[in-house]
Amino acid sequence: MNGKGTRIATFVRLPLYRNYLRSLNPMPEHISAAAIAGALGFGEVQVRKDLALVFGGGRPRTGYVTKDLLAGLESVLERRGAGDAVLVGAGKIGRALMEFDGFTSYGVEIIAGFDNDPSVLGRTDSGKDILALDKLPAFCKKHKVRVGVIAVPDDQAQAVCDMLVKAGVQAIWCFTAVRLDLPENIVVRYENLAASLAAIFARLDGLTV
Amino acid sequence: MNGKGTRIATFVRLPLYRNYLRSLNPMPEHISAAAIAGALGFGEVQVRKDLALVFGGGRPRTGYVTKDLLAGLESVLERRGAGDAVLVGAGKIGRALMEFDGFTSYGVEIIAGFDNDPSVLGRTDSGKDILALDKLPAFCKKHKVRVGVIAVPDDQAQAVCDMLVKAGVQAIWCFTAVRLDLPENIVVRYENLAASLAAIFARLDGLTV
Repeated sequence: MNGKGTRIATFVRLPLYRNYLRSLNPMPEHISAAAIAGALGFGEVQVRKDLALVFGGGRPRTGYVTKDLLAGLESVLERRGAGDAVLVGAGKIGRALMEFDGFTSYGVEIIAGFDNDPSVLGRTDSGKDILALDKLPAFCKKHKVRVGVIAVPDDQAQAVCDMLVKAGVQAIWCFTAVRLDLPENIVVRYENLAASLAAIFARLDGLTV
Repeated sequence: MNGKGTRIATFVRLPLYRNYLRSLNPMPEHISAAAIAGALGFGEVQVRKDLALVFGGGRPRTGYVTKDLLAGLESVLERRGAGDAVLVGAGKIGRALMEFDGFTSYGVEIIAGFDNDPSVLGRTDSGKDILALDKLPAFCKKHKVRVGVIAVPDDQAQAVCDMLVKAGVQAIWCFTAVRLDLPENIVVRYENLAASLAAIFARLDGLTV
């Protein structure tokens, strides 16, 4: 479902590599995948594969140049504005996502929310704006927003999706149960929480598909 | 990351099959995978694979016995109590999950929440209890809870996990960024939302791992 080239498991580990390299004092000139693997309890092959995201393969004999590796990890993890997303649908799940503090360690952020219900407009606890839906296009253009998060009821998802695409987003992260009709060049990832939980129960019941 | 035998994509489609079969009036005695595929716009092979979850393969020549297929889908999707989960950590994400109304169409539910912060105890808007953490073991045993959802801060995740396992849950659905140390027989699924969003941006940036 994630499509090629997007292994979430790798992203789970990237902050751990960065934090480990930052903790080295003094920082060695070179560091091997084996040393990193040993320190973090990962397999060496996995470390090499993960770090290929930053470098196109590394230099297994002499190891990585430590400061270059750290800089590479930081540039992937700290996008400084290039990781900005907006969210449409400021209901419970939507607001929880806006206030979720785990995004920053990956250099991504939901910078604003939009809704067509006037009663939910305003500011979240952490001071993010929830704006009227008709402000979405101008906001996305001004802030060069690349990802739109959809957390509206199922029957509004396609219309919101069309609006986001028209506003110039390049990817959709969709929390509804509908399959969206999208131009081929738009990246989409579905987060069907109900299906995820149902799949856990199915596994307990020994159902395999 | 999901392990064998748990394809979420299939679960996304199961309610659609059920709803389609329910809509047939009169209900035909038999129905083929091709007819279902045509009606819903899916591939026939996909439909066969999905329905193998309900029947061990079906009978491609004469098709499925419609009422048996519907009954099978309903029994998978409506667990009547066997799909009960509890949640620990009634913060923003936790409460949003408790109030999420998408679970019911998959026959699963988060029936109660637990927290160690007295100020969040009480009832959610929809009337679900948020109880003190020390009530978790007795609750899980009484309600034969099989799945525990972890939505606490990272540094509390392992302790909560140990508590859930001791209380008899068979699976953990974990919304923290830590890797849990678990007995081998416990099913675990990680939902790292930050890594998911970061992976979307990485894909836009052409990073492949």
